[in-house]
Amino acid sequence: MKYIPVSQIGERSLISLLSNVFRELPDDIIIGAGADDCAVIDINESSYLVVTTDMLHRITDFPEQMSAWQIGWMSAAVNLSDIAAMGARPIGLLASLGIPLNTDVFFVEEIARGMKDCAREYDTAVIGGDIDSHDELTICGSALGTVPKGQLLTRKGAHVGDKVCVTGYAGSAGAALYALENDMDVPNSVLKALFEPIPRIKEAMKLAATGHVTSMMDTSDGIAMSLYDLSNASGVGFILQEKALPLQPEVEELMSFNRVNLNYMALYTGGDFELIFTVRPEGIEEVLNMGNISMIGEVLPHDRSILIQKLDGTVLQVERKGYEQLKIAR
Amino acid sequence: MKYIPVSQIGERSLISLLSNVFRELPDDIIIGAGADDCAVIDINESSYLVVTTDMLHRITDFPEQMSAWQIGWMSAAVNLSDIAAMGARPIGLLASLGIPLNTDVFFVEEIARGMKDCAREYDTAVIGGDIDSHDELTICGSALGTVPKGQLLTRKGAHVGDKVCVTGYAGSAGAALYALENDMDVPNSVLKALFEPIPRIKEAMKLAATGHVTSMMDTSDGIAMSLYDLSNASGVGFILQEKALPLQPEVEELMSFNRVNLNYMALYTGGDFELIFTVRPEGIEEVLNMGNISMIGEVLPHDRSILIQKLDGTVLQVERKGYEQLKIAR
Repeated sequence: MKYIPVSQIGERSLISLLSNVFRELPDDIIIGAGADDCAVIDINESSYLVVTTDMLHRITDFPEQMSAWQIGWMSAAVNLSDIAAMGARPIGLLASLGIPLNTDVFFVEEIARGMKDCAREYDTAVIGGDIDSHDELTICGSALGTVPKGQLLTRKGAHVGDKVCVTGYAGSAGAALYALENDMDVPNSVLKALFEPIPRIKEAMKLAATGHVTSMMDTSDGIAMSLYDLSNASGVGFILQEKALPLQPEVEELMSFNRVNLNYMALYTGGDFELIFTVRPEGIEEVLNMGNISMIGEVLPHDRSILIQKLDGTVLQVERKGYEQLKIAR
Repeated sequence: MKYIPVSQIGERSLISLLSNVFRELPDDIIIGAGADDCAVIDINESSYLVVTTDMLHRITDFPEQMSAWQIGWMSAAVNLSDIAAMGARPIGLLASLGIPLNTDVFFVEEIARGMKDCAREYDTAVIGGDIDSHDELTICGSALGTVPKGQLLTRKGAHVGDKVCVTGYAGSAGAALYALENDMDVPNSVLKALFEPIPRIKEAMKLAATGHVTSMMDTSDGIAMSLYDLSNASGVGFILQEKALPLQPEVEELMSFNRVNLNYMALYTGGDFELIFTVRPEGIEEVLNMGNISMIGEVLPHDRSILIQKLDGTVLQVERKGYEQLKIAR
């Protein structure tokens, strides 16, 4: 058989292949591997259990400038973000640490404190884990949550005419990474967007309780990739308004002397861990009144594809690209 | 502050330190990080949710002779073994794969098939995961299970006079590893003990249902370490009978020309993934009749320590040693 390195097919194709291996599921598994931000298990009459896992490691995920505490916070936050994406309440985190043998014990304790502080902020805790020696610092987290059956939010369910919304700012993490890589001075508020992402647990639980949200996921791979995932799951298209993309003022200032297209960053860079979701038109006012939420577009029929109306009125296709693991050039 | 590398304190001390960071737990967490084979969550009136995670990687856990399918099987099995140790039924597995970019796609698919086959053997499935690029093949699994509240088995509960039992054979994985490292020809039945461990899910569920088992854990770090963990949790001592240690006949034959003390291996090497548990005297006959279970000793008061009666009748102290991560020399 011909040798094909994983770098040739990339993360999303490999996930498709593996999801196919794992396609047979017991009856109580409502959503399985690769299909949503979390797997969903039917545990009792009233609620679903949602579970997720994420592996992070030094080279790709923890820039040198990150503190040990921030490494811990981020490791918890990225998993909690997946719990949020389902509208669920977190009930526990697991953390496996692969640690180089020469790592300072205090550094490891600080990582643990970062995890604990993030978990506690969302009324949960690190309840289990494993320790392994490893050449490269590697942290694999898992998170568990529960959600009342009527409030589960998935990538499937967006309807034509629904409004598209996001929490927080778009592109801040990408801008921070760009600035670091180009040796620019980065204000702390922008660095925090990259190093201390806020999982939108509180917002997600409120959104799920409104009954107005029809689909949801997090933006960890960028808004563009998220829209393609929602499109695929819900069988719809989208049109975004470029002028509605929520940019962080400090990021606009930071980038004002650079030839970087901030709106491009807002669409195509990952690391923001905000929520993107669709809302029934009759519920949009209530949702926007919750605060820290922007309406950025509308759901179209599937054959209209995924579009963006630029500031000058022209309409372009949003490209299917964003953050993807396993590609040598990214 | 003085720099202390993790290699200086070792896995168990580091787990104690981190367990202390994570000691504050919400009310619904019955058992938290580091205290047992799984964390235990009170999810509803009738049952507990048990969860565990294990990180494995190429250098330490997957000898060159292992096939991709076996790597996948083992990654699922070690997590399922922790679920078994609580007397629980598995309801799902998560798998995060850190993959070198030059890995053959087919190799990754074979890992997935090994996981799937192991999960299916125990009526469960891989329901979620993550993929990451990594210099060294790294697999982090998590497993979930449920157990009726009355049937939860933990490390705590052994009483003086209870009998000590183990499933399967002791020391087979250690013997296989020794043989590989010394370039000996290893029969397939012995290699399988190392490369394709059998999580004792079926035995554990039956044992839990008898009501006769008072404490349980798996033997992944060796029988000696397990006894120290049970001793610590239950506040008891133990006396083992050396002649009762269940040795695999093929292992006895394999080692017959070597100056290796097989009983030493049975006590102090890891990788077996059998169950070790204590049984009320009135239930021992029923338990032994289940088959594939050996009675190897008895529970003593705590101040008697952990002892072994040798073949010649002398009684020695069992040493507190076995498989431990993070130590440079092991």
